[in-house]
Amino acid sequence: MAVVLSFEESPSERALISPLVEATAAGMEQVNRLVIARTSSDVELIPQVARYLIDSGGKRLRPMLTIASAGACGYRGDAEVKLAASVEFMHTATLFHDDVVDESETRRGKQAARLVWGNQESVLVGDFLLGQAFKMMVDVGSLEALEVLSAAAATIAEGEVMQLTTAKNTETTEDEYLDVVRAKTAVLFSAASEVGAIVAGADRGVRAAFRSFGANLGIAFQLIDDALDYGGQSPTLGKDVGDDFREGKVTLPVVLAYRRGTAADRDFWKRTLVKGSIAAHDLEHAVALLDRTRALRDTVERARHYGAMARDALAPLPDERFKVALLQAVSFCIARAH
Amino acid sequence: MAVVLSFEESPSERALISPLVEATAAGMEQVNRLVIARTSSDVELIPQVARYLIDSGGKRLRPMLTIASAGACGYRGDAEVKLAASVEFMHTATLFHDDVVDESETRRGKQAARLVWGNQESVLVGDFLLGQAFKMMVDVGSLEALEVLSAAAATIAEGEVMQLTTAKNTETTEDEYLDVVRAKTAVLFSAASEVGAIVAGADRGVRAAFRSFGANLGIAFQLIDDALDYGGQSPTLGKDVGDDFREGKVTLPVVLAYRRGTAADRDFWKRTLVKGSIAAHDLEHAVALLDRTRALRDTVERARHYGAMARDALAPLPDERFKVALLQAVSFCIARAH
Repeated sequence: MAVVLSFEESPSERALISPLVEATAAGMEQVNRLVIARTSSDVELIPQVARYLIDSGGKRLRPMLTIASAGACGYRGDAEVKLAASVEFMHTATLFHDDVVDESETRRGKQAARLVWGNQESVLVGDFLLGQAFKMMVDVGSLEALEVLSAAAATIAEGEVMQLTTAKNTETTEDEYLDVVRAKTAVLFSAASEVGAIVAGADRGVRAAFRSFGANLGIAFQLIDDALDYGGQSPTLGKDVGDDFREGKVTLPVVLAYRRGTAADRDFWKRTLVKGSIAAHDLEHAVALLDRTRALRDTVERARHYGAMARDALAPLPDERFKVALLQAVSFCIARAH
Repeated sequence: MAVVLSFEESPSERALISPLVEATAAGMEQVNRLVIARTSSDVELIPQVARYLIDSGGKRLRPMLTIASAGACGYRGDAEVKLAASVEFMHTATLFHDDVVDESETRRGKQAARLVWGNQESVLVGDFLLGQAFKMMVDVGSLEALEVLSAAAATIAEGEVMQLTTAKNTETTEDEYLDVVRAKTAVLFSAASEVGAIVAGADRGVRAAFRSFGANLGIAFQLIDDALDYGGQSPTLGKDVGDDFREGKVTLPVVLAYRRGTAADRDFWKRTLVKGSIAAHDLEHAVALLDRTRALRDTVERARHYGAMARDALAPLPDERFKVALLQAVSFCIARAH
């Protein structure tokens, strides 16, 4: 298929994510086919816009969680494929909407869809994908899976609204920021993992295990993403650094650096993130402050805590290949920061 | 006053909690006087039953949080004393009710009030204390403080009901257990801290800082309590060990040991905690399993994470004596486990 899994990782990181990619390869082949099929429409603009983003090489980590959790629960059918594709569509829809809300200029190294195709088009294609996601869920016919995924969709929207209020607020506490991460990111990781167990007919305890696994992996994933946006634990100013800074996003590294910093530090964060007045060497200075206050190091440390919780959630399950692959995916998410 | 602050700590632990005890001594003197005054009643049984528990030497950590947070916000009035006493009454009321619900036999090294005075008496005196707590809050006349404390009272009750469903369920995930801890314990620590800031007229950011500080300290406190009930990080079978085990409580050490354990381990936990069939050396075996699965060590590690969050919540505040005392109280809570 045309869709390429593009991970920009080191060999040691690749060794951590490969087991999940391989264990879910057959299912993901079907998911990718479904993603192409369900972005078709007589309205020609829709597949053009949708595939512009879809073909730009996301990790497809979320649908892999659904395939792997169904596999870990011994599922032998193929209903998990539609749920996995739904999860990917829900994720893609939020990317379209996020870029409009955040007025982003790039996404996955390309110009944002909203700049190529327009804001209205981006919002409406996002809505189209959400609609397709719900159609696929309904096709599967599991009311329990529908409940989990529709609740997730509502929570994600709540999280986006919540973020509007915390976005430019440097006084945000870590707990407030975590509430946003739980709603915006963790809930879809959680739902993606849980519906795999649901479709496999797993019992309450196993469902709860996957729900908890996904939620904690999602938090760890987001916190590492936050750290990577400033170059990771040992920051180096590479090409993909500074998007959050330029967009004035208050992420965990900033929350910690702001709270731990001097009055001058706080003035700097307010000027750059709240007022959006960014001068030539401000990103370098931001990274220096994050380093001096140990904010990046401790963001990774916090992510490790959620990674440990994710691992313990799955601890009771038998150590077959899907579970082992999921545990290594946790290590992959955290290792990215080094 | 007759009320003694009894901390059974080592000299190094005492050095960590002394700053908070000293910084809040004047306020706590008034709180203790108010506690005596407001347990008076023409119904003679009420002060007898109430003081039986109140005089048995609790730490009074929660009201100290209120006094200290008001102090840290530069408050110079005395309204925080009534709020602090309310917090202590809310806490005492839950102890009365808990002991009835859990059919506990001892509390703070003494026979439980319900065994001395009866279950009905314990429930009703708990209700009386809740009523007195609300009266004192209303006296203060801060609608914002009333909102925070009444919301806490409702959440605590929800947490108790939630616990009825997780209590004997060894399949409980760490997230589910944390939900109970947040509702049962952390919310009162959080409210206790926040209302001190409210009464001092602190701004939104400072209120949020104290709310977050208290919530995370509360989680850390409870997790260390859970570890201590099995002897702490390096378990030794002392006299105060094993209450949770005998009452079949599924606490974090058990959640981790159960999830990480073998099939035989899980049978053991189900037999002892769920079925309540406990033989002579079962507590020793439980402690050995907690040690082997590193469940106690990691419970303390998890507590450290919440302690770090609590510290970062207060980081932006000036380093005056109340804040410094509160930060050391975080270290005290965690050091207890060693």
